[in-house]
Amino acid sequence: MTTEMLGIRQVKVKDGFWGKRIDRAIERVIPYQWRVLNDREPDAAPSHAIENFRIAAGLSEGEFKGYQFQDSDLAKWIEGASYSLIYKDDPLLREDLKAAIELIGRAQQPDGYLDTHYIVKKPDKKWQELAHGHELYCAGHMLEAAVAYRQVTGDDSLMRIMDRLVDLIRAKFGKGEGQIDAYPGHEEIELALMKAYRLTGREKYRDLAEFFILNRGTEPGFFGDPRYLELKEKDKALDASYYQAHKPTLEQDTAEGHAVRAMYFFTGMADVAAATGNEELKKTLGRLWENVTKKRMYVTGGIGSQGDGERFTIDYDLPNDTCYTETCAAIGLAMWSLRMLALDPRAEYADIMERALYNNVLSGISEDGEHYFYVNPLMLKPDVARFRADHESMEPNRVKWFPCACCPPNVIRTLTGLGQYLYTRKGRRIYQHLYIGSETEIGDISLVCDSAMPWEGSAHIRVSSAEPFELALRVPGYACGFSVRVNGSDAAFVQENGYRILSVKNGDQVEVHFDMPPQVLVANPRVTEDCGKACVLRGPLVYCAEEADNGPLLQDFRLNPAPGVKVRQSDLFGGIRLLCVQGTRTDGDGDTRLYRPYGEVRRRSADSVLIPYFLWNNRGEGEMTVWMNVTEPGLPE
Amino acid sequence: MTTEMLGIRQVKVKDGFWGKRIDRAIERVIPYQWRVLNDREPDAAPSHAIENFRIAAGLSEGEFKGYQFQDSDLAKWIEGASYSLIYKDDPLLREDLKAAIELIGRAQQPDGYLDTHYIVKKPDKKWQELAHGHELYCAGHMLEAAVAYRQVTGDDSLMRIMDRLVDLIRAKFGKGEGQIDAYPGHEEIELALMKAYRLTGREKYRDLAEFFILNRGTEPGFFGDPRYLELKEKDKALDASYYQAHKPTLEQDTAEGHAVRAMYFFTGMADVAAATGNEELKKTLGRLWENVTKKRMYVTGGIGSQGDGERFTIDYDLPNDTCYTETCAAIGLAMWSLRMLALDPRAEYADIMERALYNNVLSGISEDGEHYFYVNPLMLKPDVARFRADHESMEPNRVKWFPCACCPPNVIRTLTGLGQYLYTRKGRRIYQHLYIGSETEIGDISLVCDSAMPWEGSAHIRVSSAEPFELALRVPGYACGFSVRVNGSDAAFVQENGYRILSVKNGDQVEVHFDMPPQVLVANPRVTEDCGKACVLRGPLVYCAEEADNGPLLQDFRLNPAPGVKVRQSDLFGGIRLLCVQGTRTDGDGDTRLYRPYGEVRRRSADSVLIPYFLWNNRGEGEMTVWMNVTEPGLPE
Repeated sequence: MTTEMLGIRQVKVKDGFWGKRIDRAIERVIPYQWRVLNDREPDAAPSHAIENFRIAAGLSEGEFKGYQFQDSDLAKWIEGASYSLIYKDDPLLREDLKAAIELIGRAQQPDGYLDTHYIVKKPDKKWQELAHGHELYCAGHMLEAAVAYRQVTGDDSLMRIMDRLVDLIRAKFGKGEGQIDAYPGHEEIELALMKAYRLTGREKYRDLAEFFILNRGTEPGFFGDPRYLELKEKDKALDASYYQAHKPTLEQDTAEGHAVRAMYFFTGMADVAAATGNEELKKTLGRLWENVTKKRMYVTGGIGSQGDGERFTIDYDLPNDTCYTETCAAIGLAMWSLRMLALDPRAEYADIMERALYNNVLSGISEDGEHYFYVNPLMLKPDVARFRADHESMEPNRVKWFPCACCPPNVIRTLTGLGQYLYTRKGRRIYQHLYIGSETEIGDISLVCDSAMPWEGSAHIRVSSAEPFELALRVPGYACGFSVRVNGSDAAFVQENGYRILSVKNGDQVEVHFDMPPQVLVANPRVTEDCGKACVLRGPLVYCAEEADNGPLLQDFRLNPAPGVKVRQSDLFGGIRLLCVQGTRTDGDGDTRLYRPYGEVRRRSADSVLIPYFLWNNRGEGEMTVWMNVTEPGLPE
Repeated sequence: MTTEMLGIRQVKVKDGFWGKRIDRAIERVIPYQWRVLNDREPDAAPSHAIENFRIAAGLSEGEFKGYQFQDSDLAKWIEGASYSLIYKDDPLLREDLKAAIELIGRAQQPDGYLDTHYIVKKPDKKWQELAHGHELYCAGHMLEAAVAYRQVTGDDSLMRIMDRLVDLIRAKFGKGEGQIDAYPGHEEIELALMKAYRLTGREKYRDLAEFFILNRGTEPGFFGDPRYLELKEKDKALDASYYQAHKPTLEQDTAEGHAVRAMYFFTGMADVAAATGNEELKKTLGRLWENVTKKRMYVTGGIGSQGDGERFTIDYDLPNDTCYTETCAAIGLAMWSLRMLALDPRAEYADIMERALYNNVLSGISEDGEHYFYVNPLMLKPDVARFRADHESMEPNRVKWFPCACCPPNVIRTLTGLGQYLYTRKGRRIYQHLYIGSETEIGDISLVCDSAMPWEGSAHIRVSSAEPFELALRVPGYACGFSVRVNGSDAAFVQENGYRILSVKNGDQVEVHFDMPPQVLVANPRVTEDCGKACVLRGPLVYCAEEADNGPLLQDFRLNPAPGVKVRQSDLFGGIRLLCVQGTRTDGDGDTRLYRPYGEVRRRSADSVLIPYFLWNNRGEGEMTVWMNVTEPGLPE
C-alpha cells in the first residue's frame, strides 16, 4: 500500500502562528501581485506578464518583455490565489482568475502550444532552446496552476488548456522517429505532470514525467543548444551539472548545480518513484537525500552554497555570508521532503521539511508580507555585503520585488498551500507530520488540531470518524519527553520510524506534549566556516543574534553554553519566545591595535539575546549571525 | 637634516637566510627570465617582450603581443639583472644587458617616445588612454631600470634614453597651454622619477614626480578616458578609487583601490615628501599608514582583501581565503615602509617592512626559485579553491609563470636589490633596520654584519671608520631582552623611536642579542574572520599549519596557548625552526552527522606543527591555515 499526499482542500490551516501569515498573504499580497502582473502597481516595476499574454492572444500590440520565464509569474499567482479561495471565497478574485484563464486560452495556439516568449518573440525557435528557454518550466508551473484551480474550484477550464499543451509536448518529445530526445533545462514540469496524474489518474501525465526524469543526463539532451554551450564557455558554474545533466539520473549520487532546479528535479523524481515503484529511483533518491541533508544543507534548511550559478558546490562547503540559500530552493526542499514522506514515512524527512518551512522559507518574507529576500544568508554585515564583489547576491534588507520574481509568488503559494504539508495517509493510517493548527477531512475522518507550536510543544487533536483508524504522530527530532494521552489517559502505541502510532476512534481527544529545550548545535568539523562555533535552536526554529538586540560586532561574542540557554517570553512581533545566552566579549574597546598578544586580551561577561532566524531584518538594517564562537565543548576530563 | 636611503652598491647582502635565495635568483631565475623574454624558453608561454621592441625598432615584422604593459617585464628584468652584477659580475649578462639597452634605444622614436604597445599597435592613441594604457607605468619601470643599471655599472646609456622620454613627458603633461592635465592610471613613474632625482640631483625629475603626485584625484585627469568609463560601468570594483583618484591626494585618508597601485603611489608620495618637505604630504602619509597597517593589513604584511579589482575593500575586512594579498603589493608595502623610514626613522615602519619581506613577499617564490604565487592567501583548502567561483584568484599551487607576469620579476629585483632595505643614514648616524648579514660601505664607514636571523635574535657588527659615528640599532617590536654589547661590554645608549643609538668607532665589535619567544596573536575583534582565532609568530616570521605536517581538517584544531609554544630545530628546508603547539581536535570521526548537540561532542588532545608561512606549499598540495581557533583568552577571574 502506498502513502498518499492529501488534496489541497482536505486540510485548512487554522493556526496561531501560520494563520496570520496566510491571512496577510491573502489580504495584501495576492491583490498586490495581481496589480503587479497587470502593470497597475505604481510602486513596482511593470511585470508585463499579463500584457505578454494579451499580445500573444492578439488582443494587444507590442513586444514581449521580461524574462523568458515571465509566464510562470502568472502561473504561480493562479496557483496561490486558487489555494486562497479555500480560506476566503472572494468572488472578485474568482473573476480575476477566470479572466486570466480565459486570456491564457486565447493565447494558446491551435496546436496547443503555449509560451508567450516564443509565440511573440521567437516563433521560429520553439523547442530549440531547451537549456534556457524555460518553455517546459513555464508549462509545468501553468499545469500546477491548472491542478490547483481545478482542485479548489472544480473548474477544469485551465486543465483543458494545459491538457492540449501536454499532448503537444508528448508528441514532440520522446525517443521515437522525429521526436526530440531531450529534457527540460529547468525541471518543474515533471512534478506538475505528477500532480495532474494524481488528480486525474491519467497515465499519459505519469509517463511523460517518467520519460523526462529517467532521460535526464543522457545524450543528446540539450548539449547541442548554442546557449548552453555559450554559458558553459563563459562561466564554469554553468556546466552540465548546473542542470543536473552531468550524469544519467540513476547514476547521480550528489546534489549538483542550481539548487532550485535540483529540488524540483528530486521532487518530480520522488513522485515518479512513488507512482511507478521504481526501486532504482528510490535508491537514487536515498543517496541524494543523504548527500543534501548530511553534507550540503545549512542548519536553516537552506541550500545552494554559492551565488554564481545559484548552486550547490562541494561537500561541507557551507559559508555563512556568501551562500545563496534561495527562498525558492528551501521551498523546493520542503516539497521534496513531503514526497519522501509519501515514499516512506520517516520522521527525519519531516524534521527537514519543518526546518526549511520555519526558517529559510519564512525568512524570505517580511512580517508586513510585502518585502522579500531572495538570498537568505546565515551571517550578514551590511557594510561588507554592500562593498564586496563576492557578496553581490546579498541584499542587506528585504526588497519589495525582484526583476527575476520567482521567490515572492513562490512564498505566497507555499503559505496558501501550506495545508498539503501537514498529513499523509496510508490506507486508514493518518500520518501527522506537522503540529500546525488545522481542520482536516479525509473521507469519514475528521481531525481538528490546535497547536501551540512553534513556541510550545503541545497539540490537541479532536477526532471524528465513522470507523476507528490509526493516527501516526511524529516525534520531532528535537522533542524531549514526548507523551500522548487520549481522553486524558495514556494510550497503547507502536513506535515506528519516528512516529507514535495509536488507534483512535470517533470522539477521541488526543493530547500531544513534548518539551523543546533550547539546543546548542555544532557542525561537523568538516564544515570549515562553522568550526569553533555553535548555533542555538528551539524546536523547529533556528535562532540568530541581531544587532538590534546586541549591538554591533556580533562576531566578538563567544557563547558559553554551560549556564544554559534561557527562554524568555517577549512582546516583540506580537509575542514570541526569545532565547538568552551567556558568554563573553572583548574588554577594552580602546585597544585599537589590529593584532595584539593573546596574553593581553581580557574578556568580560556578556549576554546575548537571540530571536528566531526567520524574523531577522524586521527591525531595520543591521548585523546578523546564526553561528557564534563557542567555548570549547567536551574536553577530556 | 634628512635621512637618506643608501645606494644599491653600498650594501651587499651576505646572509645565511637570504644569501641562498639571492644566489638562486641569480643562478637560475635571471637567465631563465631572459630566455622567457626572448621567447627561447620551451616550458613557458612566449613573452614577446623583446620581440615587441624589435618590431618597434624596425628590426622585425609582426604584431605587438602581450599586455599593454609588456615592456615593463623587460624593464624589471634589467633592474634585477643589474643588481645581480653586484653579487656576480657576469660578462655574458653584461652583454645581454647592453644588447637589451641598445635595442631599447633603437625602438625609441625621434621625439623620445618609447612604448612598444603604442608604437606598434596604436600609434594614433599615444597619451590618450591614461587610465589603462600604462605608458607612464612602463616609462617608470624603464627609468627604475636605467637608474639601477647606471648605479651598478656606471654606464648611463639607458639613463640617456630615459632622459629623452622624461623630457617628452614633461612637455606633454602639466597645467600649461596644450598640456595634458592628468596623471597615470597606474602609479610607478613617480617613485622612478624620484630615484632618478636622487641619482642625478636634477630637479626636473623631482618636479614632474611632484606634479603627478599632487595632481592625482583632480579633474580632468583621465575621467574622460573611454576605457575608464567602460570598466567603471561594468564592474563597481573599478571606480575612481581603484586608481586612487577618488579624492585629491592631500584629502585622502584611507587606502583605496588596487593595492599595488596604492603602494607605488604612497612610495612616490613619501619620496616627494622627503625631497620637498611638504608637511601636508607627510600628514597624508601618516593617515594612510595608520589606515593600512591598523585596519587593512593581514598579519603576513599582505594587502588587498578582494580579488575583484585586486584591491583594498573596507576597514577590518580581512578574509583569509578570498583575499588577494598579491606578491607585488607586499613588495610595494616594503618599498613604502623604507620611504617612511627615510622620512622619519621609527622602528614601527621597519617592523612592517620586515613582516612583509619575510612573509607575503617571500611566499611569492618557491624554494626552488622557479614557481610563483601571485595571490598569497592565509588559508587554503585545495578543493574549495578549485571549485568556488569566489576563489577564482586562488592557485592551490605555485605556478611557473603567469600571463600577467608582474610578480616573478618583481620578486627577483627585490631579492637582488635587498641591500637597499637594510640601512638608512642621517648624517653620521647609520640606522640599521634589518639584521641581515651584509657588507656595507658608507663613505669612510664600513660595516660587516653577521646575523642569525630569522632563526635567532643575534647579530654581530664589525665597524671600521675614520671617525666615530652613531649606530642606531632597531629594537624589533617582537624582541624581548634586547641587549647590545660593544667589544664585550655594555655601552651607553639613547633610545629613540624604537632605535638604540650608540656611538661607535673604528674597530668596534657590536653584539646584538634579543630573545624571540613565539608570540600568539589575536586580531582586533572588528576583524570578523579572525574572531575566536589566533596565529603564531616568532620574530619576523608568521607561522602556519600545513596538511603535510598535521593531516587534513586543519580547521578542526583548537589551539591552547597555555602550555606554551615550543621551538624545535628541524632539518626541513635545509634547517629551520618549527613551532609545536598543543590543543584539541574533535574525537570520533565516526559521527557523520552534519549538526550535532554541543553536549555530545568530545575533544581529544592534539598537537600541531607549524612552519614558517613563506615555506608553505613547498611539499605538495594541501590545506594551509595561518589562523587557528583558540581557547578563550583572558577570562575575568
